[in-house]
Amino acid sequence: MDIQRIEAAAGRLKGHARVTPLLSSPFLDEIAGRRVLIKAECLQHTGSFKYRGARSAVSALPDEQRKTGVIAYSSGNHAQGVALAARQFDISAVIVMPSDAPQMKIDNTRALGAEVVLYDRATEDRDAIGSALAKDRGLTLIRPFDEPEVIAGQGTCGLEIATQAAEMGVKEADVIVCCGGGGLTSGIALALDSRAPDMRVRPAEPENFDDVTRSLAAGQIERNTGSASGLCDAIVTPQPGNLTFPIMHRLCGPGIVVSEEEAQRAMAQAFARLKLVAEPGGAVALAAALYHGDEIDSDTVICTISGGNVDRAVFLRALEQFGEG
Amino acid sequence: MDIQRIEAAAGRLKGHARVTPLLSSPFLDEIAGRRVLIKAECLQHTGSFKYRGARSAVSALPDEQRKTGVIAYSSGNHAQGVALAARQFDISAVIVMPSDAPQMKIDNTRALGAEVVLYDRATEDRDAIGSALAKDRGLTLIRPFDEPEVIAGQGTCGLEIATQAAEMGVKEADVIVCCGGGGLTSGIALALDSRAPDMRVRPAEPENFDDVTRSLAAGQIERNTGSASGLCDAIVTPQPGNLTFPIMHRLCGPGIVVSEEEAQRAMAQAFARLKLVAEPGGAVALAAALYHGDEIDSDTVICTISGGNVDRAVFLRALEQFGEG
Repeated sequence: MDIQRIEAAAGRLKGHARVTPLLSSPFLDEIAGRRVLIKAECLQHTGSFKYRGARSAVSALPDEQRKTGVIAYSSGNHAQGVALAARQFDISAVIVMPSDAPQMKIDNTRALGAEVVLYDRATEDRDAIGSALAKDRGLTLIRPFDEPEVIAGQGTCGLEIATQAAEMGVKEADVIVCCGGGGLTSGIALALDSRAPDMRVRPAEPENFDDVTRSLAAGQIERNTGSASGLCDAIVTPQPGNLTFPIMHRLCGPGIVVSEEEAQRAMAQAFARLKLVAEPGGAVALAAALYHGDEIDSDTVICTISGGNVDRAVFLRALEQFGEG
Repeated sequence: MDIQRIEAAAGRLKGHARVTPLLSSPFLDEIAGRRVLIKAECLQHTGSFKYRGARSAVSALPDEQRKTGVIAYSSGNHAQGVALAARQFDISAVIVMPSDAPQMKIDNTRALGAEVVLYDRATEDRDAIGSALAKDRGLTLIRPFDEPEVIAGQGTCGLEIATQAAEMGVKEADVIVCCGGGGLTSGIALALDSRAPDMRVRPAEPENFDDVTRSLAAGQIERNTGSASGLCDAIVTPQPGNLTFPIMHRLCGPGIVVSEEEAQRAMAQAFARLKLVAEPGGAVALAAALYHGDEIDSDTVICTISGGNVDRAVFLRALEQFGEG
């Protein structure tokens, strides 16, 4: 993985992926005690950064391979990204989703034209289901993070951060990234290592799913022990990827772990101060910036809001419990 | 008023006002039955387009006049825009606000450093209060819409629409604008008349406050009869302006009037499909695009979400009553 691969992905995404804005609010600066810039990836097509990696990977396939279709495993955001990318290339997409994924994500994936195959996390083997389908139909698996062209696609978000921050006169910052398997985190880290070397990427994770933070501290891949569920469904993964971990280990600072309450408080702040809808997993980096200032040294912090695909009831509860005014 | 004045305002706003994104969703296209592009002015500084006009007007004042401070009348969005612009120039701002304005708008205006003077709409004379303060302290009045430099500032939103739509290959469209006194509507109309002459601006208004729609139909200024209150507080004005009406009459197509329920449905769609927080008055143009398709001829419709400063309770109610999922 190198910057050329990210630049090539940026070329393929040009005119397709949105250049999302880098936002700010004096009210958030005041809470954080430093300047806060927010990369609003919830405004990306399909409501999360995942479209970048999905479109990058699908567009990188040889024509002959692509036209027989693609398959993906996802609790929702990668699913929607792959579904939209497949539809844009007029190819079929099968998405294997856990039956307890947020309903909005299942509905949207279907509405984008994909065939959704649901499985029970507790009793069924996702990989067995997916492998059989892929073999039967000649589908290419688009992995959610441990795939070079997906990492390259997510890295285009880092290219934009470097350019947009420079336009604001910002060259040094901690860049906090909502982290599941590490595709977005490692992609941004690679991009910034080349384009903004005085910035340092920091993964943010929800408590009990802090595999990346512990892995970085230990210097080797560590797994989450609990079953993969929780409010922050978008970024709950069993362990960092075999491709993403070495990149994060080389380039990232320590992880920051936030509580589910802090993630919901950050959702309420994004509503009030940024006019943005953040999903819980997409709000953990903002939560780290706002409520974990003692773990941050830099004068400026940049954080991703990585997605906004949240069921209405979850969003309402966050605002009711943790909103102001 | 001409395009040069808008271009001059754009020069003064460069690096200060945000270039807000032009968004879309296949789900909204499906509801509308045509392509829908959304100019997300709720992402502007202070949460509404009003910052453009306020900064334009404050920055256009001669230094000597500006330094003694400014005053504005506003139910909230213009107030916040003027407050932030004044703070950026390190001058004092007095804002005369109705005591029944949304609490968030009052709080934000104070937090941005302005002195807020509340008055009772029913019993007190806003103009008398403001005039006395202006005279005593040498403050310059920044009118909310009937002021050339304010219209020019709002027109910069139109310059962006023309550029962004052209990048998407869109040259012809109905451009629906949330309309109160007509500052944003007339500014965008002037900008597009020069930069995208095949686009046609259409004002959108809430029912019972359709003064602009009726005035355009009658060919002369007509007033609203009811008292100025309602869910769409941001765009409730007694009548179109003496400067804005002739511009709208010359350049705009017929107005579109939406119900409060439709505005709230549009808020729920903006939440689910765009990940944006829209206030009721800021959602009337999207409501027109989604639910008044029979009044629209063009294949593409562009609409503003003009603001997102909504009290939490109002937003929660809209989602609870009119959201899906």
